[in-house]
Amino acid sequence: MKLEKAKELLKGPLNVVGLGLDNIVEGAKAAGSTVLDVPFKPPAGGDPKRIGFLDELHAEPLASKIDKANQEALSRFFGSQPNLVGVGIAREVVPGMTDGLFLHAGPPLTWEKASGPMRGAIIGGILLEGLAKTPEEAEKLAASGGVRLEPCHHHHAVGPMAGVMTPSMPVWIVEDKGGKNAGNRTFCTLNEGLGKVLRYGAFSEEVIVRLRFMADTLAPMLAKALEVRGPIDLKLLMAQALQMGDEGHNRNRAGTSLLFRELAPAMVKAVGDSEKVAKVLTFINSNDHFILNLTMPMAKCMLMAAEGVPYASMLSVMARNGTEFGIQVASMPGKWFTGPAQIVRGLYFPGYDESHANPDIGDSAITETSGIGAFCMAAAPAIVQFVGGSVDLALTTSREMARITLGRNPIFTIPALDFLGAPTGIDLRKVVELNLLPTINTGVAHKDAGIGQVGAGLVNPPWECFHGALEAFVEHCRNQ
Amino acid sequence: MKLEKAKELLKGPLNVVGLGLDNIVEGAKAAGSTVLDVPFKPPAGGDPKRIGFLDELHAEPLASKIDKANQEALSRFFGSQPNLVGVGIAREVVPGMTDGLFLHAGPPLTWEKASGPMRGAIIGGILLEGLAKTPEEAEKLAASGGVRLEPCHHHHAVGPMAGVMTPSMPVWIVEDKGGKNAGNRTFCTLNEGLGKVLRYGAFSEEVIVRLRFMADTLAPMLAKALEVRGPIDLKLLMAQALQMGDEGHNRNRAGTSLLFRELAPAMVKAVGDSEKVAKVLTFINSNDHFILNLTMPMAKCMLMAAEGVPYASMLSVMARNGTEFGIQVASMPGKWFTGPAQIVRGLYFPGYDESHANPDIGDSAITETSGIGAFCMAAAPAIVQFVGGSVDLALTTSREMARITLGRNPIFTIPALDFLGAPTGIDLRKVVELNLLPTINTGVAHKDAGIGQVGAGLVNPPWECFHGALEAFVEHCRNQ
Repeated sequence: MKLEKAKELLKGPLNVVGLGLDNIVEGAKAAGSTVLDVPFKPPAGGDPKRIGFLDELHAEPLASKIDKANQEALSRFFGSQPNLVGVGIAREVVPGMTDGLFLHAGPPLTWEKASGPMRGAIIGGILLEGLAKTPEEAEKLAASGGVRLEPCHHHHAVGPMAGVMTPSMPVWIVEDKGGKNAGNRTFCTLNEGLGKVLRYGAFSEEVIVRLRFMADTLAPMLAKALEVRGPIDLKLLMAQALQMGDEGHNRNRAGTSLLFRELAPAMVKAVGDSEKVAKVLTFINSNDHFILNLTMPMAKCMLMAAEGVPYASMLSVMARNGTEFGIQVASMPGKWFTGPAQIVRGLYFPGYDESHANPDIGDSAITETSGIGAFCMAAAPAIVQFVGGSVDLALTTSREMARITLGRNPIFTIPALDFLGAPTGIDLRKVVELNLLPTINTGVAHKDAGIGQVGAGLVNPPWECFHGALEAFVEHCRNQ
Repeated sequence: MKLEKAKELLKGPLNVVGLGLDNIVEGAKAAGSTVLDVPFKPPAGGDPKRIGFLDELHAEPLASKIDKANQEALSRFFGSQPNLVGVGIAREVVPGMTDGLFLHAGPPLTWEKASGPMRGAIIGGILLEGLAKTPEEAEKLAASGGVRLEPCHHHHAVGPMAGVMTPSMPVWIVEDKGGKNAGNRTFCTLNEGLGKVLRYGAFSEEVIVRLRFMADTLAPMLAKALEVRGPIDLKLLMAQALQMGDEGHNRNRAGTSLLFRELAPAMVKAVGDSEKVAKVLTFINSNDHFILNLTMPMAKCMLMAAEGVPYASMLSVMARNGTEFGIQVASMPGKWFTGPAQIVRGLYFPGYDESHANPDIGDSAITETSGIGAFCMAAAPAIVQFVGGSVDLALTTSREMARITLGRNPIFTIPALDFLGAPTGIDLRKVVELNLLPTINTGVAHKDAGIGQVGAGLVNPPWECFHGALEAFVEHCRNQ
């Protein structure tokens, strides 16, 4: 199409070919010239310092060392075998979890800098833990440092949206059964459903009652069902869901259905109380995102396997706390590179628009970091009715993400792209060089505490993360 | 692409443009001419009698009468609201079902003309009913006319593959809750799963034991669950499954999952015996085609609503008995137009090929008649790994079927085609005029009794059905 347009223009009195130099192009247009705009951006946005970094990374022997390291990291990622093995209480199973500690999504955060929905979820967590009797008391406690805040990622955990995990909450336990990383464990709370829920910052009585039901009834029954059923291979389940119109982040109906089919017979076998079983099955059936909180620790488990490979430029974490977006690189585990969280472009619920939106929030971008979510959007054309855009956007997104990734997942395949594998392993170098940011499918929280979801759409990380990471990565390579 | 090729050839010394006149084209090629082959077929295959019929149907005022009738038939079809309302015993709920009567798939058939798998299923049915003690006795009984054979379609029923329904079998009851047709009921047996099963002509002890379990345990529990749950809107369920990679005929994983989610909580509530519930849920969970036997009576229910509209050229039935393929037209309900059943092109299981295949068999082509199955193949790209071909074939099939259909289903939409509706209502006139037969996704039975499925693929009806129907339809119009 572009070529056709070019040919057509070349027939006429063409004066200027624009290569992204906006001032010159606009000037030429103003002067009456016919301009052919070619969407071109110079590598690294034309920034001389970053071009210098890229030149350094592309020089031998370093370039080959990085390529080999990425190959190793990706191979460890693909070798990971995340299995759902159980359900436990955060205090008892999550490493480093203690009373008074609240985990949250994204990079480190203080109460002062926390956004509305994050504050709402912390208030709800305090009420759930019985540390305060009213929201006002809870807020006072939080503001005075009465609870410690640490990122989920510092405890091998992930949490959607606010991602608040408190000591008494039940969590999924995912364990790596693969090769070198066997025994790695990751964690996530259970999904509450839609409407007024803690992860979107709601903390009303209804939210707390539901969280109590989840801890008292849902979690013990899931734990018993898993004991009867045995471990569930999450990669196999995800691979099937991708053949069934899920992308693993914002469309989860197939994965939830397949998990339901695995759990229901085991739960019936394991638990005698029919009324309770029916209640729990109805709860799961009413929430098409139930599996999201398992897909996330699956992704985290695979990415943990890739961490700690010197010279690897592959991303191992992308996460947002509602204020900042943070990324980590596989060769520098634990180091955050952050920038301001962005506003989501997409479909807003009736009565809401971008002015009501909280900036991007949640650890769920771990799905994109692992090659699913928006990276597999072509597998889930129906998602455009939820996040906006056309089916073509879904195809294009998956194709574009292949440009900034290291390989194709042999198990996660995309039917609409003739079973091409999910584009996997975001390469820090490629993102900067091609000026192409990862795309993330995400839900949108209202910016005020206690309101909930107001839409869904697409979002990118801020450039600051990648610029900071690039500089640190060059330093890392120099110091090896 | 064709245009490009044409342009390229037109540059050179082109001598002949071939328009499907094979002899002339071959002669020209042999004489050294450059030939541009244009894939052209004259209307109605060039047959003067059928061209005459089409001319008659295209002449006013008849043409408008037919168009209006089709509009009415399609509108009744779309107005139909098939709901799953219960499970009963064939003898008690299927109209006209009596002891000694066996229903089968496709148009009318005698034992003498029955194929291997059909004979196998009848033998199995006789053993199940206790009318004989050994397969040999059963065969003797059948050959001597000891059981009456009638098509399922004569009793508002449909059956996959051999489609044998005996009086004691449990059946799904689907009821139309929509407009004029409210109260219409259709029926289908329950799906047995894969492997050695009656519908593929197997009749070993294992098959009979499973059928007994289905009658004694599965069916009563499904019936109780439905009493608790209330009716299930099958169109809503199908609409969702099409967004999840099903096409409703040979890929049924999503639909089965969604049905499972609806039934499980209700079954747990309705039935006290945990062990039995777990056994039944495990049985359903092990069979991704479980929903097929509900999709079929849903399709039959919608098509029944369209029957009986004078002048309508819309097809209301396509069905095969393993020997013959039969179709019916909405304006002439009950009248069969038949031709020899064809061999399926597709993927055969290891050790098998087309030489082992029974000709096309089963009432399941009712799905394509209703606009799903192969007509919605673009919704189910993953199916090509089962029936063969590429993802492009899936897209092309859905696009081609739109050429021979009357409208688009407003509820059944195809994500990959930007949510275009399923191409619905096969128009007898268009099939003949465009020389374009309906495509059907189907399983393949071994030609010998007792072996089972040997593959899956695509198949077409024989032309004889459409030629016979066209002549009768012209007669029908003349006699109005």
